[in-house]
Amino acid sequence: MSETTELAAGAAKLDAADELAAVRGKFVLDEVVYLDGNSLGALPAAVPGRVEDVVRRQWGELRIRSWDESGWWTAPERIGDRIAPLVGAARGQIVVGDSTSVNVFKALVGAVRLAQRAGGGRDEILVDATTFPTDGYIAESAARMTGCTLRPLEPAEVPGALSGRTAAVLLNHVDYRTGRLHDLPGLTAAVHAAGAPVVWDLCHSAGALPVGLDEHGVDLAVGCTYKYLNGGPGSPAYLYVRADLQDRFDSPLPGWNSHAEPFGMRSAYEPASGALRGRVGTPDILSMLALEAALDVWDGVTVEAVRAKSLALTDFFLECVRAYVPAGRVQSLTPAAHAERGSQVALRCEDAGDVMKRLIERGVVGDFRHPDVLRFGFTPLYVGFGDVERAARVLAETLAG
Amino acid sequence: MSETTELAAGAAKLDAADELAAVRGKFVLDEVVYLDGNSLGALPAAVPGRVEDVVRRQWGELRIRSWDESGWWTAPERIGDRIAPLVGAARGQIVVGDSTSVNVFKALVGAVRLAQRAGGGRDEILVDATTFPTDGYIAESAARMTGCTLRPLEPAEVPGALSGRTAAVLLNHVDYRTGRLHDLPGLTAAVHAAGAPVVWDLCHSAGALPVGLDEHGVDLAVGCTYKYLNGGPGSPAYLYVRADLQDRFDSPLPGWNSHAEPFGMRSAYEPASGALRGRVGTPDILSMLALEAALDVWDGVTVEAVRAKSLALTDFFLECVRAYVPAGRVQSLTPAAHAERGSQVALRCEDAGDVMKRLIERGVVGDFRHPDVLRFGFTPLYVGFGDVERAARVLAETLAG
Repeated sequence: MSETTELAAGAAKLDAADELAAVRGKFVLDEVVYLDGNSLGALPAAVPGRVEDVVRRQWGELRIRSWDESGWWTAPERIGDRIAPLVGAARGQIVVGDSTSVNVFKALVGAVRLAQRAGGGRDEILVDATTFPTDGYIAESAARMTGCTLRPLEPAEVPGALSGRTAAVLLNHVDYRTGRLHDLPGLTAAVHAAGAPVVWDLCHSAGALPVGLDEHGVDLAVGCTYKYLNGGPGSPAYLYVRADLQDRFDSPLPGWNSHAEPFGMRSAYEPASGALRGRVGTPDILSMLALEAALDVWDGVTVEAVRAKSLALTDFFLECVRAYVPAGRVQSLTPAAHAERGSQVALRCEDAGDVMKRLIERGVVGDFRHPDVLRFGFTPLYVGFGDVERAARVLAETLAG
Repeated sequence: MSETTELAAGAAKLDAADELAAVRGKFVLDEVVYLDGNSLGALPAAVPGRVEDVVRRQWGELRIRSWDESGWWTAPERIGDRIAPLVGAARGQIVVGDSTSVNVFKALVGAVRLAQRAGGGRDEILVDATTFPTDGYIAESAARMTGCTLRPLEPAEVPGALSGRTAAVLLNHVDYRTGRLHDLPGLTAAVHAAGAPVVWDLCHSAGALPVGLDEHGVDLAVGCTYKYLNGGPGSPAYLYVRADLQDRFDSPLPGWNSHAEPFGMRSAYEPASGALRGRVGTPDILSMLALEAALDVWDGVTVEAVRAKSLALTDFFLECVRAYVPAGRVQSLTPAAHAERGSQVALRCEDAGDVMKRLIERGVVGDFRHPDVLRFGFTPLYVGFGDVERAARVLAETLAG
């Protein structure tokens, strides 16, 4: 039996034993091997019908009445409560709305204010230098607007850099480029030991692996919903503020939706209690309710099962790549240790941009990240082991000729 | 001929002569008299089909490829250029995205920074005290984060309050409660004479009357798109930055979408040139493309024609109210002078909340604003004179019984 036949047979076996295999049927998919769900999740089959109802009936027929009758007004906190169990949070701590960048601003300024309110002249923000760039740009603005200095550094350097000056720390749970999973419990504890709050960006972990926000005492967190949560292009992001911090959370964007009495139309701002203090303006209903429908795919699915399959998928992909691709042609940037791996594999490869174009032409969709990275995301809800074997095989063929 | 018969006949005549009458056919409407388009515009008939295509084909089939192939990435500036002629702006000055509140923050902080960069120790923000509350709340945050003090005052008091300390002025074009139209050209000139920039909030004017942003030299402006622009519930807002200010516009929310090379994934922020410097995070595609489809109703329609019909509608409504409603039962808060009137009529009325409930039950939809205001919005694209006469008649009947 050739290596290819053997791995293909292995894939079939793994697919047959996959307890999440049936979830794939809840998505609209075709013959493409879609390994870009860490950029834009595939369309859940329930979404088009729901969106049509929102547009035609809720907007078109009920119009303004839908703010009450269709539950539009309370959607940000209701959908936040749907996301909560996926990131290990109890209810009442997450609101959905705005982009990730805007939520990073709210969370980081909020964190600095928490620290400064506690006293001690804290004036330095530490930020993950390997972060998705927007977090760094927004952190720079947050630092400038709160009188702090910004210090970018590798996550591993954070414990050594913490001090009585630390006002807040902004970290990514999973590195968007390499797929490295950072030690959220350990880093959170280290930041807390220095008396500062930490903000975690969950864009590349939520929906792919357990996060444990409550368990690990995370202060604030943000994340997008269009990757492993499959909310659709540019679907609204979310903000987590730990319950016991909410009454001290002081948002830099105190829009009318976060007012204690939004329809009182009062000229004096009085913040609402609870998670909805993180709201700002009128929620974006079409995208928000598409996300709500998309979250139905999680019914009966545990994040633990997703994590187990995710590791099996990335292990198997690395095994197939090792078997099929000539030695030295690609190099994995993704940690081999499970404890350090997210749900993606990044391969350094010469001519990566061109290689990814050819892969896509051949029906294997990942993405290219400057300057030389092939990035493959594995969404356990709809990616199977047969897909993985085929992706590695097509990659090897593409590199061969 | 009774007064009712006479006014009903007058309405029929006005409807017959209405050059915008045919535009109503571009909307999904029923037998309800919908006078709440200043809160949520009615559904344009082209929207459901477009949204379905965005969800099923662009997201569901093309997936990640749609960022390029379906024009998702450039939607914020492309749709901004569609809004531009409606507010008297040349192309390349408007981007769509985020909520109005978030855009007020960008614009007002940006305005203060423009003023402070020009020197002179400017440290006071003037804000319309009668504004929709969110603008005031956000202005308070902007003041706090830029080291300014905030001074709320009536728009008419602005000219007398301007000084060398003025860092920026935030004004509403039309008062959301009374429907009063403020003097944008005159107030803009006064603020400029004091050497400060002005930010106009166009939520209640854009799509209802000429704004003339370029003509009057407005510095920055923001507006929502779900009222007279009919973009749908919570559809994204927009930001106008005058062309000659764009290279000095210094956004407090420098997300990766506003980077000169967003896919360069560089750690150092370098702002893009042009309007797209006002972008922040990933654009909300479902809502944004629904808005794009909604803007098709403007093909062949001029804002001048809309304004003429708007004034005729509000004049006629006031005439019918005078004729039908017992004297003293309601009192118009909306200025009689055309130059001071937006596209709504606000009637002070005892038990306004209860009266509005009964009006809605009888098929006339306006809204109630605390503490005692019946608010009726007139969207000339789909409201006719017959609707207006019926609304006044039902109001009179409701108040009588």
